[in-house]
Amino acid sequence: MPRRILVVGGVAAGPSAASKAARVDPGAEVILFERGPHISYGICELPYYIAGDVPEKALVAYTPAQLKQAKRVEARTLHCVEEILPRERSIRVRDLKTNTVHTERYQKLILATGSSPRTLGLAGEDAANVFHVKSLENGLHIKSFVDAERPSRAVIVGGGYIGIEMADALRSRGLDVTLLHQYELPLSGLELLTRQEVLKVLIANGVRFVGEAPPVRLLVDGGRVRRVDTAKGNYDADLLILAVGVQPQTGLAKRAGIMLGEFGGIVVNPQQQTSATDVFAAGDCCEVKNLVSNRKMYLPLATLASKQGWVAGENAAGGHTRFPGAIRATAVRAFKLEVAQVGLGSEEAKLARFDVAVETVTGSSRVAVMPGSKKVTVTLIADRRSRRLLGANLFGEEGAVLRANTIAVGVQHGMTVDDMQQWDLAYSPPFTPLWDPVLIAANALQKKMYRK
Amino acid sequence: MPRRILVVGGVAAGPSAASKAARVDPGAEVILFERGPHISYGICELPYYIAGDVPEKALVAYTPAQLKQAKRVEARTLHCVEEILPRERSIRVRDLKTNTVHTERYQKLILATGSSPRTLGLAGEDAANVFHVKSLENGLHIKSFVDAERPSRAVIVGGGYIGIEMADALRSRGLDVTLLHQYELPLSGLELLTRQEVLKVLIANGVRFVGEAPPVRLLVDGGRVRRVDTAKGNYDADLLILAVGVQPQTGLAKRAGIMLGEFGGIVVNPQQQTSATDVFAAGDCCEVKNLVSNRKMYLPLATLASKQGWVAGENAAGGHTRFPGAIRATAVRAFKLEVAQVGLGSEEAKLARFDVAVETVTGSSRVAVMPGSKKVTVTLIADRRSRRLLGANLFGEEGAVLRANTIAVGVQHGMTVDDMQQWDLAYSPPFTPLWDPVLIAANALQKKMYRK
Repeated sequence: MPRRILVVGGVAAGPSAASKAARVDPGAEVILFERGPHISYGICELPYYIAGDVPEKALVAYTPAQLKQAKRVEARTLHCVEEILPRERSIRVRDLKTNTVHTERYQKLILATGSSPRTLGLAGEDAANVFHVKSLENGLHIKSFVDAERPSRAVIVGGGYIGIEMADALRSRGLDVTLLHQYELPLSGLELLTRQEVLKVLIANGVRFVGEAPPVRLLVDGGRVRRVDTAKGNYDADLLILAVGVQPQTGLAKRAGIMLGEFGGIVVNPQQQTSATDVFAAGDCCEVKNLVSNRKMYLPLATLASKQGWVAGENAAGGHTRFPGAIRATAVRAFKLEVAQVGLGSEEAKLARFDVAVETVTGSSRVAVMPGSKKVTVTLIADRRSRRLLGANLFGEEGAVLRANTIAVGVQHGMTVDDMQQWDLAYSPPFTPLWDPVLIAANALQKKMYRK
Repeated sequence: MPRRILVVGGVAAGPSAASKAARVDPGAEVILFERGPHISYGICELPYYIAGDVPEKALVAYTPAQLKQAKRVEARTLHCVEEILPRERSIRVRDLKTNTVHTERYQKLILATGSSPRTLGLAGEDAANVFHVKSLENGLHIKSFVDAERPSRAVIVGGGYIGIEMADALRSRGLDVTLLHQYELPLSGLELLTRQEVLKVLIANGVRFVGEAPPVRLLVDGGRVRRVDTAKGNYDADLLILAVGVQPQTGLAKRAGIMLGEFGGIVVNPQQQTSATDVFAAGDCCEVKNLVSNRKMYLPLATLASKQGWVAGENAAGGHTRFPGAIRATAVRAFKLEVAQVGLGSEEAKLARFDVAVETVTGSSRVAVMPGSKKVTVTLIADRRSRRLLGANLFGEEGAVLRANTIAVGVQHGMTVDDMQQWDLAYSPPFTPLWDPVLIAANALQKKMYRK
């Protein structure tokens, strides 16, 4: 009898896991259940779709028919998994089109239930002009709302990655944009200098950033939010975007007695196994090991969902592979500015009891006198005792993100500042200066660490 | 009595070493001797200067007066060191302005005598319209020749990095360009696919590339080369550029009995010490350890000169530091194409007795549907026995060189393909696809290595 592998959730980790399982065990029957109407789409592209830079058809990687054809995975959309019965190795699934519930048995189950957007907890949040940026439907709705209604004033709540990308997108569509954030500066968790630079860029591009201004009241009229009130002032809105983070969607796992961690995500081992026999999990519903601090964290990123999906899928299909964890490597474009973070931030590193040394340098993306050269600022964070590289922030109008990825390799592999200082990197005037900003930063931090 | 540190050579490694020595031992007397009229300039920028992209004043980092002021180093230009007397700890220096020779004593000596351009060995090479691209004077002469004489046909000999950069520069100045190369394809030492791509780009940009066509005769008339004859045809020339490589300039060291290696360069240890007591060497005059093959190589690169200069300078001034070696990381722009190599090539790896596995993938520089996204092709080379990453070639119109630098860190630190496959890299649609080409390449090579 063929192995029966069921997958719950069809956005990112789910299709990745299902496709991998079907490839590793060509005899297996692999079925994916998705509550919504779409599967296999990119949430990260939504701001660029709304801005008009990316066409709608590019958002979906595979339709159910394509997934069947290309990957031998049966995807059942508008199917909501309501219960897991681990001892019976079965799930209860509601077909939302017929509103009937039936039981599906499995040999292996993979949970890829994702995350749900956080809310403000205010009356009016369900008004017709209030949107999250969390699903394909959200993205399609925002775009058609902007296209059809031509709103002139947007209020965005949340100054994280998505909030900034949406501010950029809506400014490019000609809207007046107010960005309300809980803290004084955008991008909580990044270094002070990075956050100050991003604030400058937001202001320079006409975004009204209001720090320490969580909404306290939504003024609703005619089924629409018309004004957002905060302790720092009241802001008129034709359109309200909520980008205040996400939380792991784990009701199903919790009810089945599957162990959750301190951040509310499903606890998995490096094989992506949960506490329940034959049940795997991957993506935004899981917690993940931080390879720098060696602690668990909650980090809902598409790259991790995709990789964890592969690992869960391969192992569910009888393979043996591991997902070691993540260092946290993230990037965002704030208008023309590239911003990237890898590893621990300096405050976070102090909390993790490292003896933190930090140094910031500004170099150039190419030989400084070459046409097109831009400034690149690198902040390196290391531990004085072990001399180990803990993390970095980079920003600049060119080559900041890819340089962050070079540093990421050093951070992931536990290299010291001294290792980094000896990196042999390619040099050519149109692409790098003789001393790349990455190496200048290592030199400067090494010098600083010797001085103390 | 202050320590007296003498430095021979003023282009790249010399000023780096002298500046570092003066900083490490603030009491030291540091004197640098340079045969030519200029010090501390960038040879790598010359093609961009000739193209008109970089101004003349940007070529020189420090004049002698600035070096004195900023670094406390006395630079004596037009001073030719003619002899080293290691036992007496002295050198004999000819002042080219007065044509007098005098003796200078030292406690520590640093040789940074650089490299000299290879020649064709043909009559006519010294004609007024024949140029190397090896010194600031060369660059100034080529630029003023092109500006003043408006030549219409250039022949470039040598399809390596400099030859390609000069082809690009002279095409941008409107010249008809013929590029003669010894082998069938440009960029000997890179992978076949890379070389084929570069050939395509050269042709697409109007360069007449002629492979297997070393010049056999130069037709000279009126003191100028008018035609270059090869077995593949004869090419009219108003201007002839020779870019056929360089060799270590070691006459001085050799006459002093300092040990040279199999490639003719000075042999140094990781402290940049030569075989002679208290004599250091750095830059193009030295051989360097290849950290991948663990063998010596000759690799005249500005980045290595600068780093070795630091190490030689610090150690000469009483410090203790090391230059571990290089993996060979190089980059070149061929018109719009970024090309980079790190580590060993596949042929070279076979010669070094690795059990070579090679895989090539093409990904995109950003999420493929994002505006501005370009293709990036990554070829990875690894050893099947150890699974160790040995090297890579990358090309593409965006983000190839900086991605090569990420791979370089893995190659330098002896990582395996499996390590690389687990790299946690930052992702954001405007900068990388969800699966970066670097990771796609690692996945593909890993799969290929399992298959065998």
